Amino acid sequence: MCGVIGIHSQSDVSKKLFYGLNSLQHRGQEASGICVYDGESMVLEKGMGLVYDNFDDESFLKLSGNIGIGHVRYATAGGSHEYNSQPLLAFSKNKEFALAHNGNLVNHKSIRKELEEEGMLFQTSIDTEVILSLVAKFYEGDIIEAVKKTMARIKGAYSVVMLFEDKLVAFRDPNGFRPLLIGESQKGEVIIASENAPLEIIGTDKIRDVKPSEIILVDENGIHSDFYEKDNREHCIFEYVYFARTDATLDGVNSYNFRRRCGEILSKEAPVEADLVIAVPDSGTPGAMGYAQESGIPFAEGLVKNRYMGRTFIKPTPEERELSVKLKLNPLETVLKDKRIVVVDDSIVRGTTSKNLIMRMKKAGAKEVHMRIVSPPVKYPCFYGIDTPSRKNLIAANYSVEEIREKIGADSLAFISMDGMLGATGLKEDVFCKSCFNGNYAVEPKELIV
Amino acid sequence: MCGVIGIHSQSDVSKKLFYGLNSLQHRGQEASGICVYDGESMVLEKGMGLVYDNFDDESFLKLSGNIGIGHVRYATAGGSHEYNSQPLLAFSKNKEFALAHNGNLVNHKSIRKELEEEGMLFQTSIDTEVILSLVAKFYEGDIIEAVKKTMARIKGAYSVVMLFEDKLVAFRDPNGFRPLLIGESQKGEVIIASENAPLEIIGTDKIRDVKPSEIILVDENGIHSDFYEKDNREHCIFEYVYFARTDATLDGVNSYNFRRRCGEILSKEAPVEADLVIAVPDSGTPGAMGYAQESGIPFAEGLVKNRYMGRTFIKPTPEERELSVKLKLNPLETVLKDKRIVVVDDSIVRGTTSKNLIMRMKKAGAKEVHMRIVSPPVKYPCFYGIDTPSRKNLIAANYSVEEIREKIGADSLAFISMDGMLGATGLKEDVFCKSCFNGNYAVEPKELIV
Amino acid sequence: MCGVIGIHSQSDVSKKLFYGLNSLQHRGQEASGICVYDGESMVLEKGMGLVYDNFDDESFLKLSGNIGIGHVRYATAGGSHEYNSQPLLAFSKNKEFALAHNGNLVNHKSIRKELEEEGMLFQTSIDTEVILSLVAKFYEGDIIEAVKKTMARIKGAYSVVMLFEDKLVAFRDPNGFRPLLIGESQKGEVIIASENAPLEIIGTDKIRDVKPSEIILVDENGIHSDFYEKDNREHCIFEYVYFARTDATLDGVNSYNFRRRCGEILSKEAPVEADLVIAVPDSGTPGAMGYAQESGIPFAEGLVKNRYMGRTFIKPTPEERELSVKLKLNPLETVLKDKRIVVVDDSIVRGTTSKNLIMRMKKAGAKEVHMRIVSPPVKYPCFYGIDTPSRKNLIAANYSVEEIREKIGADSLAFISMDGMLGATGLKEDVFCKSCFNGNYAVEPKELIV
Amino acid sequence: MCGVIGIHSQSDVSKKLFYGLNSLQHRGQEASGICVYDGESMVLEKGMGLVYDNFDDESFLKLSGNIGIGHVRYATAGGSHEYNSQPLLAFSKNKEFALAHNGNLVNHKSIRKELEEEGMLFQTSIDTEVILSLVAKFYEGDIIEAVKKTMARIKGAYSVVMLFEDKLVAFRDPNGFRPLLIGESQKGEVIIASENAPLEIIGTDKIRDVKPSEIILVDENGIHSDFYEKDNREHCIFEYVYFARTDATLDGVNSYNFRRRCGEILSKEAPVEADLVIAVPDSGTPGAMGYAQESGIPFAEGLVKNRYMGRTFIKPTPEERELSVKLKLNPLETVLKDKRIVVVDDSIVRGTTSKNLIMRMKKAGAKEVHMRIVSPPVKYPCFYGIDTPSRKNLIAANYSVEEIREKIGADSLAFISMDGMLGATGLKEDVFCKSCFNGNYAVEPKELIV
Repeated sequence: MCGVIGIHSQSDVSKKLFYGLNSLQHRGQEASGICVYDGESMVLEKGMGLVYDNFDDESFLKLSGNIGIGHVRYATAGGSHEYNSQPLLAFSKNKEFALAHNGNLVNHKSIRKELEEEGMLFQTSIDTEVILSLVAKFYEGDIIEAVKKTMARIKGAYSVVMLFEDKLVAFRDPNGFRPLLIGESQKGEVIIASENAPLEIIGTDKIRDVKPSEIILVDENGIHSDFYEKDNREHCIFEYVYFARTDATLDGVNSYNFRRRCGEILSKEAPVEADLVIAVPDSGTPGAMGYAQESGIPFAEGLVKNRYMGRTFIKPTPEERELSVKLKLNPLETVLKDKRIVVVDDSIVRGTTSKNLIMRMKKAGAKEVHMRIVSPPVKYPCFYGIDTPSRKNLIAANYSVEEIREKIGADSLAFISMDGMLGATGLKEDVFCKSCFNGNYAVEPKELIV
Repeated sequence: MCGVIGIHSQSDVSKKLFYGLNSLQHRGQEASGICVYDGESMVLEKGMGLVYDNFDDESFLKLSGNIGIGHVRYATAGGSHEYNSQPLLAFSKNKEFALAHNGNLVNHKSIRKELEEEGMLFQTSIDTEVILSLVAKFYEGDIIEAVKKTMARIKGAYSVVMLFEDKLVAFRDPNGFRPLLIGESQKGEVIIASENAPLEIIGTDKIRDVKPSEIILVDENGIHSDFYEKDNREHCIFEYVYFARTDATLDGVNSYNFRRRCGEILSKEAPVEADLVIAVPDSGTPGAMGYAQESGIPFAEGLVKNRYMGRTFIKPTPEERELSVKLKLNPLETVLKDKRIVVVDDSIVRGTTSKNLIMRMKKAGAKEVHMRIVSPPVKYPCFYGIDTPSRKNLIAANYSVEEIREKIGADSLAFISMDGMLGATGLKEDVFCKSCFNGNYAVEPKELIV
Repeated sequence: MCGVIGIHSQSDVSKKLFYGLNSLQHRGQEASGICVYDGESMVLEKGMGLVYDNFDDESFLKLSGNIGIGHVRYATAGGSHEYNSQPLLAFSKNKEFALAHNGNLVNHKSIRKELEEEGMLFQTSIDTEVILSLVAKFYEGDIIEAVKKTMARIKGAYSVVMLFEDKLVAFRDPNGFRPLLIGESQKGEVIIASENAPLEIIGTDKIRDVKPSEIILVDENGIHSDFYEKDNREHCIFEYVYFARTDATLDGVNSYNFRRRCGEILSKEAPVEADLVIAVPDSGTPGAMGYAQESGIPFAEGLVKNRYMGRTFIKPTPEERELSVKLKLNPLETVLKDKRIVVVDDSIVRGTTSKNLIMRMKKAGAKEVHMRIVSPPVKYPCFYGIDTPSRKNLIAANYSVEEIREKIGADSLAFISMDGMLGATGLKEDVFCKSCFNGNYAVEPKELIV
Repeated sequence: MCGVIGIHSQSDVSKKLFYGLNSLQHRGQEASGICVYDGESMVLEKGMGLVYDNFDDESFLKLSGNIGIGHVRYATAGGSHEYNSQPLLAFSKNKEFALAHNGNLVNHKSIRKELEEEGMLFQTSIDTEVILSLVAKFYEGDIIEAVKKTMARIKGAYSVVMLFEDKLVAFRDPNGFRPLLIGESQKGEVIIASENAPLEIIGTDKIRDVKPSEIILVDENGIHSDFYEKDNREHCIFEYVYFARTDATLDGVNSYNFRRRCGEILSKEAPVEADLVIAVPDSGTPGAMGYAQESGIPFAEGLVKNRYMGRTFIKPTPEERELSVKLKLNPLETVLKDKRIVVVDDSIVRGTTSKNLIMRMKKAGAKEVHMRIVSPPVKYPCFYGIDTPSRKNLIAANYSVEEIREKIGADSLAFISMDGMLGATGLKEDVFCKSCFNGNYAVEPKELIV
């Protein structure tokens, strides 16, 4: 998961990119970067860490331009290197190409191999660079043609913003796996971003989704829209479950309303006698409220989330790691003590967090802990941009609900049904990608399956 | 408002101070610092900014000691200078004194003047240095005696942790205005801090409040307790209203339960017909839940708070300032649209934030906005450590409730009654300082009144 | 101009790379970087600025490996971007290739164009990346074969160090334009670097030049040497004139002795009656001493060089620029006053520095200023790695010696003769590249001539 | 040793302080700081490290004022702490006092003890704070009176610049141990600094020494001069021997001419048959030239000094320490080999550096090494601002010249005579402090003798 933003304006965009990225920070905290075109060449500043750690007054003396893009990168397991931070910048054919991407290609390995056999080399180890490479390779004077040829080759999830000379280009895969929105201010400033929050905060009207297969080009003449092919909607339903901000409305579904309705539905599907409903903040909160509302069991805050994240040290001791985990969520003894608790979370992936949490809730005095999950069991890895573990580490791929319940130490455990969740969207179910729940992959991910 | 922490251990405390301060970060984001005693001398690292901005791997190569203190400083209006960050360190009589303080002295100006006339000078412009100066001045071989003589001179609010050689010292004013707790682990590690969160996270049992007038000394022989005089409890009730974490239990009152009960009581005192109850997050949330629970009106999240704070640039433009404000709270159109809303906040101080918020809620489609405040009107400045403005800027000091309602653009407005709020504590009312509501100052603040 | 270093060892090399780069800092101050192989993958840290600005304790917690390379980059005119700093790192064919380069290719534009037409793109705007691209493209399992194929394509000046898995590779162009030396310690540690200083400081014996056309591979079995073709020596004579440290012995010529002898020879070629000989420090000093020694005119220090360079601010005012220039060299009134001065410098390129200097010397009281230059007039640009301006900005390409004298305000001006300079080397003249003086380019630079 | 600067202007002084400090950097590399008065209050930025490491574009967004002072601090043995960096800033009597100091007080311990017994405490462990404390203590509305009362109490060496409201104050001890100069530009800008370099670089005319006992006050009405008492000149002769820049003219003696003449005199006092004269750069260079000139033995550069200093890591290994030492000076084999060398240095303190150097010169092939020192043997510690070791570590305090020669491994060793050195000044000998050579302390340092 990542977040992207692009702005085309008549005035300096660097601080707007900064604040916009800030409102997308929940989509990725590992690295962040901004690239602007200063009228002559690209200026790129990026690095490991949060947006406001990477940019200061001195950065903005360098970053100066009326058009730019930005990116926040999700902390992925394994080696995290500064060279994998985005935007990527590359030179070819006397042009500079800058690009930022949210999603994941399912065929990047084979394309990469093919390109390498042709002699191409790469500056990063991420799939995004395959997109950049193809666009540059196919470019012969018409950037939109190059994008179309690129889209003909790449498969999977991609919501891309690109800077090419004084043009802002954006495109979205035919399935529309990952969100992408566009808005325009009354002054003609155009903003494209992963969620609506930056568009609302910086101030645009006429906010709409970039459509699956759509290619946008923004230049001095305004917004041009083109399509690569017909769309074949497969919007990632997990965006609403977990990733997007509560205030996001993506492809016709509002994240808050969806989560809340899931809680209501789950309350009917899996009722329980209890004293309090609590949430695992923040993404579990609307679901818990819906559960409480429907069930009539009072909602309370029983887990306190630390709003200031700890820094990661280079070689932490195990003791330091544990401190850092405990810092994140603190069970509220005064709420939990001697109570029968329904705790609502958005999903269970590995199960380790749930286990640790239930253990600490019981230590804080909870008499019973009934876990309710407002998404179905995650049984399959995502190949379209979410960093889920392989099947052997997905607890629901290997154990029954009852076995999971026992492993995590809950007194009862229930997941919302697939139909329940889909009903909460208010849309027809076939526009969503549900592959992490049912293993039906709209775009064949064969080469990624280990 | 500030937060303090002190740790006495048999192993290195620097990372524990770091994580502990992190959990107190909500009490102050302007500056932060850590001072440890390395067995020979004090090592001090501090600076402007958040805890995890000020400390990195290189800091911890320097900070190495089994005893230390830390501080987070609240962003105060007016000149913020690095030299005002804490802990303070001073040299006298061949000793090093390090000290961190939460609270405010009401007689620091006259003491300072007196000391200056004796020829003393100061390294900061903060009242804390008066405490440090007196302790050093009175020190003649017995640090506890020096503290007692200091307590005989200073008046007001002070919860202090101090490092003196290999001893950790802490003391709290006779009124106990600001919180201070102590805990001990099974291994004999002692932690003293402004709230219970760091004690729970780092791991201590036997957590108790440091008592008003109490003086604690921790050395290799354990914990020694002494008293300056009888206590005369005046616990700041605003800690529960606003400052403390939701999971804080300070001087017998749990912050979460208090806030929730206030909401319940207010719901009875000031009912209204509406479709939804929403909160101004985060401190308004428990009150809003209580209000919803008691009234039967559904609770919803209608305001989304950005979890990643923007950096402050040195010379922001007005446009940048506005972006930064909008970034903090975003009204959720999908929740508010065409609804009659009860919005619950913890307090109204100047009224400008409420006005801006209601305006944006209405723009997002709210049909009616009924504001409910889970504390009485703030009519008087605080002289005991909360950075409230002078009377002329306190809206409730100058206008009636109806006038305030009109100014902030609410459809109705109600504050909880004083009795209502006090009832929510579950304790006798005379143990609380309520001066910001009723102007009854337990410790005469004459010299601070402008 | 740049400096490179590579180390292959049985213990950690990161700090040695740091100190070694430090001793090469005179070859480039714009940017610096270190890349080590940690046994699994490459770790790269680089950035704008001096070596000791870019690396701190935290860097060395990350950089940990027994084999590594480093680079210092010269401040070039025009856009200086962090992405152009070296070492470069690239991925291809499941391998990581890291490379650092001193020199300049004369055919990088055409190769780049060709590669771009094949679809390749570049992460930098520097010629070095062409080398990296070719090596990766040609790599099919044998790194030395890939290097040979690369050498068959690239023309111009290149002294390269490369990291490939646990191997250190180095190669030098057939003309040997830029220096490169190798040494081995008694413990079997191998160091390859642009000058002998790092080899002596870190501690190796058996120091020798890497030969023109030579390819070195260092792995656990020791040093392997191979040759691409016969050498055709064209050692850059300007290295001895200006770039190399005084203590450098490169390809059989010692820089200090060369400079001093040039001064002696010039003293015979262009004598003058004067009171004192002074040098433009530091590279003019040995020449001035030779001149003084031979002429019998006393040598004195009349220009004081500031040893601490000022930082470059992002948008300096003209006044700040001037301060920064004056800071560099200060004429010593007490030495110059009322004296007839011979001032010896290594070369004249644009003439602006000489003009400014003579003006300031006269203002400080010098009665006469006779300028003596220990290299012939620079009439042609260098295409082999020295950042000389185009012909229209080379003063000696456009004006006679007498015209130059008048423009810079000297009372007399003389350059050493070509024969004089060549004689000072003690070697046969045909082993040197003298193209900046006579325009005879051993390797055709056609595509670089603007 | 330290360096100070103060500027009073009608325009912003922050960058001028920066460049001025840069030209004083040779007087101290441990820490640096700048304090300006912005019209309302003091803005202070300081830290460990070189001037250009501590200040960047962001610093200068904060530092903005027409009057300011700066300081560079010498690396002293033992604990170096950021809190000891200057300028110091203190608050008293509703005023802000900022001060920077070069020198050393001989009675700071007793004054400090006295002040501490009165109850005063200190923010640093340096003697400078005693001056600041006294000025603040004595201030009763007239800053010059406060300075005079302070000067009546403090004894020893002090050249001080002070910022008080919109006034720049400077004063120098009656003995004038440490240098201090003042200059004024045609625009009325006044600069006061430790050496003339910053005055010349920033651009002032009418440069003169601040006189011993003189008190300068610069305000909007210009420069006011006052005197505390008659002067009793005891200018530190070691400034000319070692500390000052070559281009310094302090109290009537030019550092370059002095050093050169010392070399000439020493050549007559201690001739030797040899092939070459070389210098230990940089302070030994003029002496070596004088020696060469007078003796007729050719001068050559045989030791190469690294112009880029290595960073100090927090916990260096012994191997890293040695690398760092070797990095500083590299013997030039090509010059030294098979030669009889006269090596001229400014002084011998502990003898360890000389020993190491001679060993390395011999390893590089020197046949004979004759050491010549252009100052007499240092037999007594300095109590007036130079960080010399105690007597037991001064080699000349414990051994005869012949014993020293043997210990350092020289083939011969000679020091200039006291009369010789004094003759080189051109002034009467009684204006100089020679205490480090003869133990005659003009100001009793009893309480500092351990």
